[in-house]
Amino acid sequence: MKSKSSQNEARFAYEGLDRVIHERARLSVLTSLITNPNGLSFVDLKQLCGLTDGNLARHLQVLEKDGMIKIFKEQDQNRLQTMVRISTAGRKRYIEYLQTLEQVVLDAAKAAKDESASKPLRGLTPTRA
Amino acid sequence: MKSKSSQNEARFAYEGLDRVIHERARLSVLTSLITNPNGLSFVDLKQLCGLTDGNLARHLQVLEKDGMIKIFKEQDQNRLQTMVRISTAGRKRYIEYLQTLEQVVLDAAKAAKDESASKPLRGLTPTRA
Repeated sequence: MKSKSSQNEARFAYEGLDRVIHERARLSVLTSLITNPNGLSFVDLKQLCGLTDGNLARHLQVLEKDGMIKIFKEQDQNRLQTMVRISTAGRKRYIEYLQTLEQVVLDAAKAAKDESASKPLRGLTPTRA
Repeated sequence: MKSKSSQNEARFAYEGLDRVIHERARLSVLTSLITNPNGLSFVDLKQLCGLTDGNLARHLQVLEKDGMIKIFKEQDQNRLQTMVRISTAGRKRYIEYLQTLEQVVLDAAKAAKDESASKPLRGLTPTRA
């Protein structure tokens, strides 16, 4: 039902915001995993994302079914622990998603800065205070 | 049920990702509105966001109820048209949200860059190709 004769018409549609990734808890999980390419234990992931066991398990199921992550077991001292890592396909999709997210930030930050000098954003430089 | 003894534990929780704003269509609407502070007509907003009438109306209702936007009528030639603009409170909340979004991009882009020199992100500079 959408009419889009040009890219400009739907300038702010952000179709690259993949719904599987965009959901807040899953974005949290995937960002943790992309910054830890060797994988994270279920326990560490739960803490990093501030999720409950049930919530994390549910979102991991969605991501695994979609081929974005791999779940495996690893020996830790005397017991097996559940580990999670991002898949190659997952990494590729996440990076595509990130490019759109970056565009949102650039679009909005520019407007926000133009209007309010009194409450500036931190700026899009890679440095952090 | 979350145990968070320190900020670091839930490093990737991104609690600032306000669910009202984070939903893709609403993020699209709000980004259009923040870049057009004088307001946009319903028709223009629909085109910019690539949404149908019904979808846009539904999301505008959510945003209006939450005090993030103002909906008003404006004379356009011989007829009244529906206009939408972001409210002061909405703008404030959007900017807070944006700061978290920016953090996600910074966290992830750093990791993505570190790992793959072959497929770099465009980089967090304000220039666009």
